[in-house]
Amino acid sequence: MKILIINPNSDTAMTRVIARTAKRYAADDFEVACLSAPGAPKFIETYQDEAGAAPGMIRLVRENEKSCDAFIVACHCDPNLDFLKEITDKPVVGIGEASMKIASMLGDIFSVISSTGHSVPNKKALVRKYHLREALASVRVAEDGDYLKAARAAVKEDGAEVIVLGCAGMTGLDKRLQARLGVPVLDGVVCGLMIASGLARGGVSTSKVRRYAGRR
Amino acid sequence: MKILIINPNSDTAMTRVIARTAKRYAADDFEVACLSAPGAPKFIETYQDEAGAAPGMIRLVRENEKSCDAFIVACHCDPNLDFLKEITDKPVVGIGEASMKIASMLGDIFSVISSTGHSVPNKKALVRKYHLREALASVRVAEDGDYLKAARAAVKEDGAEVIVLGCAGMTGLDKRLQARLGVPVLDGVVCGLMIASGLARGGVSTSKVRRYAGRR
Amino acid sequence: MKILIINPNSDTAMTRVIARTAKRYAADDFEVACLSAPGAPKFIETYQDEAGAAPGMIRLVRENEKSCDAFIVACHCDPNLDFLKEITDKPVVGIGEASMKIASMLGDIFSVISSTGHSVPNKKALVRKYHLREALASVRVAEDGDYLKAARAAVKEDGAEVIVLGCAGMTGLDKRLQARLGVPVLDGVVCGLMIASGLARGGVSTSKVRRYAGRR
Amino acid sequence: MKILIINPNSDTAMTRVIARTAKRYAADDFEVACLSAPGAPKFIETYQDEAGAAPGMIRLVRENEKSCDAFIVACHCDPNLDFLKEITDKPVVGIGEASMKIASMLGDIFSVISSTGHSVPNKKALVRKYHLREALASVRVAEDGDYLKAARAAVKEDGAEVIVLGCAGMTGLDKRLQARLGVPVLDGVVCGLMIASGLARGGVSTSKVRRYAGRR
Amino acid sequence: MKILIINPNSDTAMTRVIARTAKRYAADDFEVACLSAPGAPKFIETYQDEAGAAPGMIRLVRENEKSCDAFIVACHCDPNLDFLKEITDKPVVGIGEASMKIASMLGDIFSVISSTGHSVPNKKALVRKYHLREALASVRVAEDGDYLKAARAAVKEDGAEVIVLGCAGMTGLDKRLQARLGVPVLDGVVCGLMIASGLARGGVSTSKVRRYAGRR
Amino acid sequence: MKILIINPNSDTAMTRVIARTAKRYAADDFEVACLSAPGAPKFIETYQDEAGAAPGMIRLVRENEKSCDAFIVACHCDPNLDFLKEITDKPVVGIGEASMKIASMLGDIFSVISSTGHSVPNKKALVRKYHLREALASVRVAEDGDYLKAARAAVKEDGAEVIVLGCAGMTGLDKRLQARLGVPVLDGVVCGLMIASGLARGGVSTSKVRRYAGRR
Repeated sequence: MKILIINPNSDTAMTRVIARTAKRYAADDFEVACLSAPGAPKFIETYQDEAGAAPGMIRLVRENEKSCDAFIVACHCDPNLDFLKEITDKPVVGIGEASMKIASMLGDIFSVISSTGHSVPNKKALVRKYHLREALASVRVAEDGDYLKAARAAVKEDGAEVIVLGCAGMTGLDKRLQARLGVPVLDGVVCGLMIASGLARGGVSTSKVRRYAGRR
Repeated sequence: MKILIINPNSDTAMTRVIARTAKRYAADDFEVACLSAPGAPKFIETYQDEAGAAPGMIRLVRENEKSCDAFIVACHCDPNLDFLKEITDKPVVGIGEASMKIASMLGDIFSVISSTGHSVPNKKALVRKYHLREALASVRVAEDGDYLKAARAAVKEDGAEVIVLGCAGMTGLDKRLQARLGVPVLDGVVCGLMIASGLARGGVSTSKVRRYAGRR
Repeated sequence: MKILIINPNSDTAMTRVIARTAKRYAADDFEVACLSAPGAPKFIETYQDEAGAAPGMIRLVRENEKSCDAFIVACHCDPNLDFLKEITDKPVVGIGEASMKIASMLGDIFSVISSTGHSVPNKKALVRKYHLREALASVRVAEDGDYLKAARAAVKEDGAEVIVLGCAGMTGLDKRLQARLGVPVLDGVVCGLMIASGLARGGVSTSKVRRYAGRR
Repeated sequence: MKILIINPNSDTAMTRVIARTAKRYAADDFEVACLSAPGAPKFIETYQDEAGAAPGMIRLVRENEKSCDAFIVACHCDPNLDFLKEITDKPVVGIGEASMKIASMLGDIFSVISSTGHSVPNKKALVRKYHLREALASVRVAEDGDYLKAARAAVKEDGAEVIVLGCAGMTGLDKRLQARLGVPVLDGVVCGLMIASGLARGGVSTSKVRRYAGRR
Repeated sequence: MKILIINPNSDTAMTRVIARTAKRYAADDFEVACLSAPGAPKFIETYQDEAGAAPGMIRLVRENEKSCDAFIVACHCDPNLDFLKEITDKPVVGIGEASMKIASMLGDIFSVISSTGHSVPNKKALVRKYHLREALASVRVAEDGDYLKAARAAVKEDGAEVIVLGCAGMTGLDKRLQARLGVPVLDGVVCGLMIASGLARGGVSTSKVRRYAGRR
Repeated sequence: MKILIINPNSDTAMTRVIARTAKRYAADDFEVACLSAPGAPKFIETYQDEAGAAPGMIRLVRENEKSCDAFIVACHCDPNLDFLKEITDKPVVGIGEASMKIASMLGDIFSVISSTGHSVPNKKALVRKYHLREALASVRVAEDGDYLKAARAAVKEDGAEVIVLGCAGMTGLDKRLQARLGVPVLDGVVCGLMIASGLARGGVSTSKVRRYAGRR
């Protein structure tokens, strides 16, 4: 089994950190690679950024479809996820969707820690799209990059029972935060791997009737 | 890694079929066992059945907590799931919750195939509890045990893009139905294993603040 | 007409206070009794407590089914309510459900005063189960046992127009709080009696098709 | 205790039938009267009918406020209910609200039997207003006045577990229908009396902060 | 094209201000008039006020139905809107509905600035009626008449992206507030005119099947 | 005032029909033009089609931003609408959003007539995104291109009070269908023009804080 993680932005340092998390999770049990979408913007924040990342993401799927068993989109706003689900028969997993649905299985309500205030409405729109609005405690912005402080406020003030790291760039911080907070902290990259490897192993993928059918 | 699958009923033939599915999924990569809850009723259909299964399920968790990395409740109505999440620090996964949340990642709306009309309102209550009402196409009863016919009607008439097998006893039928229907068919036991093995490997479990805190 | 109030816990002091409220409401117009569930835990807070109370609650229903016209479950988290509705043909009313549905008829939004922070997510899950999420202003914890302060904050800060006492143990405090707050304060025991006596007098009970049908 | 039932229309035959139901429920335990709103239209079907009934309904409340302990609006579309809740300190209960909230306590989903197709969207708007949309199986029109047939279809085809008679004019049919259908059938007048007499006895009424405060 | 704006209250100063806004919007492109409902209360705040305004509003519609192409109800709580939609074949637009639905097209979530705390639950009930609950950031009361302060708090603290002026009496303040806040500020009178003139020009009006059919 | 209508596909015959509808609506009161997005696919049905239309749509916005007062996206699935709202300060209106929100003001529930079964889940996802799920009667597919038949079924069987033409290609059919159906039929192009011209005239546009802020 081989899983390709697509980093929709061109920040290669972030790509390396994501790869490190992925390899630690996969250990020797399956193969995993992480590639930046060629020609993508440095950071995915706006709708324009998302559209700018599309061509490179599509190219990665097309070029690796034969050799890979599943794809992961490693940006927590799940850019172009519907599109990729449509163009390939292999499973495609967004780390936003995976982490938030898993969060809803581990506690009553969860909070997402976001790095920028700009992304709050988009996160909430994503939460509604995934039918998780009643399971959301809050989206908390780590104003000054202090994720622990934001997560602690989410637990204390918003009643969050689970914390979701709301950016692929935060990958690898989960265990340290979890140890200090005393609640589960979900790393999107890890959650994406749980679902993607499970789907690949279980032999199920995106439905190709109706929504993701593509053109016949 | 070792996962214990708890069959909440005392139907040992069903326990064997579940175990077969589980071993096929786990292959040689992790250990898996399936046990019937001691003293449980033959079939879980009513609230009384659910309560009757509780003592045996608790005993299995208590006796295997040290040696196992995760538990799966292998009945699609997720009986006593909240209770078990509360009494152990290890991950506990219901096949109802796992299969329906995974279904919502593979297509727009899904249908659950149920073996008895009696369970329809309970399934729908479960769907609402998991915030999946907008992702549900229908609960279809296989009146005469003809799962293919019920699933086909769900796809054609209700717009289902994904089929969820709504009873642990249907385990093992997924691939054959999937081949004939042309849409993903989800086997709850397989879905439970995807999530449970993922959580165990990823080192996250039920939140122990508030909802599942138990008594201090 | 005779109504049996089941206190799911074994706190006999609480049982006495509940009985006092009940007798005051019933006056000489109908008979009412309050019994502790035999073998139940001291306090109902966790899922384990709820399961521990089940056998005694069932026994009380079975032993009194012939002589009673309706049952009330006098714990605001409505433990084992679905189960009891299933096993008897007589009406069974939970004080949580009764008080919150009546609250929704007396004002736009209501707040529940809870004695422990632990129970907040469970209260909210109950509110969702009863389709009352949009009618809920807040669940307020009386941190230091100061119910008046918590209720006042709910009215002033959360916009609550009605206060629901969120624990059977608070029974009897309603009129005093109501006088000081100037908004209706609902005592679950009283609300349970309104509904239970009304159903018994009106000759309607739990539907026995589908959800609460039990095994045939 | 004395309860005044207001029939918002001027159909005195209907007023008499409502009074008969009410007296049977009240027996000798409390006093009950039923009056037609003076100057009201023959039948309440449109918004214009509802507005036309307002002056007479107000007059009945004003004239009987001192002598009565609670009011019931005996039209299943609950016309002018918010208005009446605002202008009096005594409890005011709509038979639509009362019957549908009680229905939601007796089974998973309920159906309303309506006498005219015209009223279906208004019934559904009412259901949404009372937060009961997820508890509604259907609104069934008894096209040819055959309530039994409409109710039977609701139970068989729509999964209804409880039937609500959707017009005050159907009062008194409940027990006969219940006997033939095998599911609870709710008579709005009876349900209104359950709640109104309970509120009056329990000493709680409409909240007078905010929504129903009226002008100071 | 001629549009009649109905001010449901008898405050003629407000009627003049509304007319001024309307004439500025209409310029020379269409005719617009604003009239106070004869016999209406000074201010619309309670259900009683709404009912009191009905006769005058109806009279204005009846007297101007021939000569006008559309009607606007210029009170942000949309009093008697359903009623007016029913009694005329011409389009009737409430400034509450128009402004809040337009707000939902210009940003993720909006806040309504209200002049009195009393109206908050009614505003929220209106928001729910219009299916806009998930698009509402907050209803903010301008306690001391300081609309700018209330709107600023809505933007900063509640995440509002659009501000809706929640009272016809605030008409004409939109551009000044917009300039200072940096977010769109919607004047209900302007929004009502957008929709009403559009419907009249486009030749569509209220559906006359079912909900607004009136009596045949 | 000048409004540019962007046809996201390259079907120039459709562009001409849209332009004809638009000129009829605008008459001599404002200027309107309709252009096909350069390089766009023939028909917008899949996510791939939507992405393929993006570059041409962006180019049209960029090239006409100075000279135009508002933009309309003339495809009923509102492709790239969020993106366009982000990149320009001028109002951008999708005909899907405009027509469905206007439909919700003209009747209780509406149906969308769709030309292909493939688009049903996407339409429903759009309906949920716009918070209109409770106002939707159905999405009806005109299997054989018979829009009248599909619309009639929606009115008779699904209770629709308003019909929305679910494809820009159906523009111009509204009045004929409306005459035969007896309910309002909404043409998306007309609805888009109502809103776009209203916003331009009223001097309000997309909020530029948070969701549509774009990169700074």
